[in-house]
Amino acid sequence: MTESLKMKIPTFKEVQKAYLKIREKVHRTPVLSSQKVNDRAGGELFFKCENFQKVGAFKFRGATHAIGNLADEDARNGVATHSSGNHAQAVALAAKQRGIAAHIVMPENAPKVKVNAVRDYGANVTFSKSTQESREATLNEVIQETGATFIHPYDNPDIIMGQGSAAIELLEDQPNLDIILVPIGGGGLISGTAIAASGFAPDTNVIGTEPEVANDAYLSFKTGERHPVQSTDTVADGLRTSLSDLTFNCIQKHVDDVVTVTEDEIIDAMQFIWERMKIIIEPSSAVPLAAVFNGNVDVENKKAGIIISGGNMDLNTLPWQEN
Amino acid sequence: MTESLKMKIPTFKEVQKAYLKIREKVHRTPVLSSQKVNDRAGGELFFKCENFQKVGAFKFRGATHAIGNLADEDARNGVATHSSGNHAQAVALAAKQRGIAAHIVMPENAPKVKVNAVRDYGANVTFSKSTQESREATLNEVIQETGATFIHPYDNPDIIMGQGSAAIELLEDQPNLDIILVPIGGGGLISGTAIAASGFAPDTNVIGTEPEVANDAYLSFKTGERHPVQSTDTVADGLRTSLSDLTFNCIQKHVDDVVTVTEDEIIDAMQFIWERMKIIIEPSSAVPLAAVFNGNVDVENKKAGIIISGGNMDLNTLPWQEN
Repeated sequence: MTESLKMKIPTFKEVQKAYLKIREKVHRTPVLSSQKVNDRAGGELFFKCENFQKVGAFKFRGATHAIGNLADEDARNGVATHSSGNHAQAVALAAKQRGIAAHIVMPENAPKVKVNAVRDYGANVTFSKSTQESREATLNEVIQETGATFIHPYDNPDIIMGQGSAAIELLEDQPNLDIILVPIGGGGLISGTAIAASGFAPDTNVIGTEPEVANDAYLSFKTGERHPVQSTDTVADGLRTSLSDLTFNCIQKHVDDVVTVTEDEIIDAMQFIWERMKIIIEPSSAVPLAAVFNGNVDVENKKAGIIISGGNMDLNTLPWQEN
Repeated sequence: MTESLKMKIPTFKEVQKAYLKIREKVHRTPVLSSQKVNDRAGGELFFKCENFQKVGAFKFRGATHAIGNLADEDARNGVATHSSGNHAQAVALAAKQRGIAAHIVMPENAPKVKVNAVRDYGANVTFSKSTQESREATLNEVIQETGATFIHPYDNPDIIMGQGSAAIELLEDQPNLDIILVPIGGGGLISGTAIAASGFAPDTNVIGTEPEVANDAYLSFKTGERHPVQSTDTVADGLRTSLSDLTFNCIQKHVDDVVTVTEDEIIDAMQFIWERMKIIIEPSSAVPLAAVFNGNVDVENKKAGIIISGGNMDLNTLPWQEN
């Protein structure tokens, strides 16, 4: 039995508690809507803008909660993780705010701007080769050397509880949502969201959305057996990871459906949001709206919430320019 | 004596009245701030986000007021203007909301996306050659044919009063600003802003900001004589127009200073806002922040409001990509 199978699915009360613990440390991000988006969608959409969150992504919620919750003896030697994405910055800033060290393993080919962002928060960066094996091996070395506590990006109940706080805020602002749509990568955000909705708004359907070319959650949900992700060739770079047993269990218990979208649909929805709403979202965040626009999620005469997961991306190459 | 010289500088009371007339028709846009921007600026900045305004720019305020204020006999045959920019869309939508026709003269080389946006609001588009002469001649033909009333983008007191409503909202949200910074194109926005501040917050300095390569307002302000713009070779495409006598008079009476910035400084400030604040602003809107970053406006230990004029631009070519 793996470590994660022993983990318990968080309860709604635990998500609520997490929210109360972190609410002063995270931004309460705005919920935006757009007539032009609604006209095209045929329903009323409400975007919870975690692209305006600290570090530019919802990941700061989970990291703040998980790191804040560490016992002093576990926190003493700092925290560690491997990530080239939003989780790296989230752990770096949350550790800084607790006043402990952060050790981040990043692949040697990580964009310099991301490495600098992590260092700007005062974290120590150790480079690995870009393979998963090298990243994990390097992380283990760092942990053995430093005694730091590993903060997994999603296979961690405290992380999931923290991520659920975005949905609580969304439902406080818009209590009568028929649907909440969330992108699925490793499953931390949708797990927290679905647990939050189960207690706060039991009639609200929670639907996961995923790129067709990285449809591990879709296959897992439909077959009832966890499938690892096969391809990582999606523009939605935040969604290239596989579910863990823990997040898969959360999804099986609390999520109502999982649907997929094509790469072109992601890029089209992303461009639509940039052009009409004037906000910068990363490709992963466009996946839920793509599922509305392609008809896989019907919002006609409904109110749907969408969690915009983040806004971090390379502004030198925009996906529609490569087409 | 030209038509515009006969125009009276609007009073603060007129700007207030305009605000009350249009407040239900325009978005009350949010005022955002960013720790990362403040850290670099060395002061507290508050961004009034007119990029989230209807049609994506503050221009909708003035157009709504000017068109709403027309006597029925002047409105009967619709309104007309020539513009390839935000004023075109603003007039189109404001006319639609009043239920009258809009006739927009656009240069034949105008980007298709801008032509379509104007047509989407139900306006009639007539193409001219791209020279100023052809645009004006074509506009005159359209007006003679249709009997429509000309809505000038800034040489019009009703337009100026409407633009001032953005500053009123900003000062309602942040009453203790030491400075308000605004970009200067034709001068409509800064005129309305300065008049609003003169009544609402007389201790607040209003400072105009302008590209160095299109520094007509700077020269006019410093010499006391109106200079037409010489070059239109700035990335800030909304700021390529000259002041009118009316806006120059407003600036002389109510504006505290005018400063300039280089093209590189504009692009740097624009990219900083995109990256750190995750909002899409057009190049013209970055000019005030560029003046803070380059030290021409000192905000140390001060509170400064910045009006983000709009967010409409071609997302296929970003200025930092051309560098």
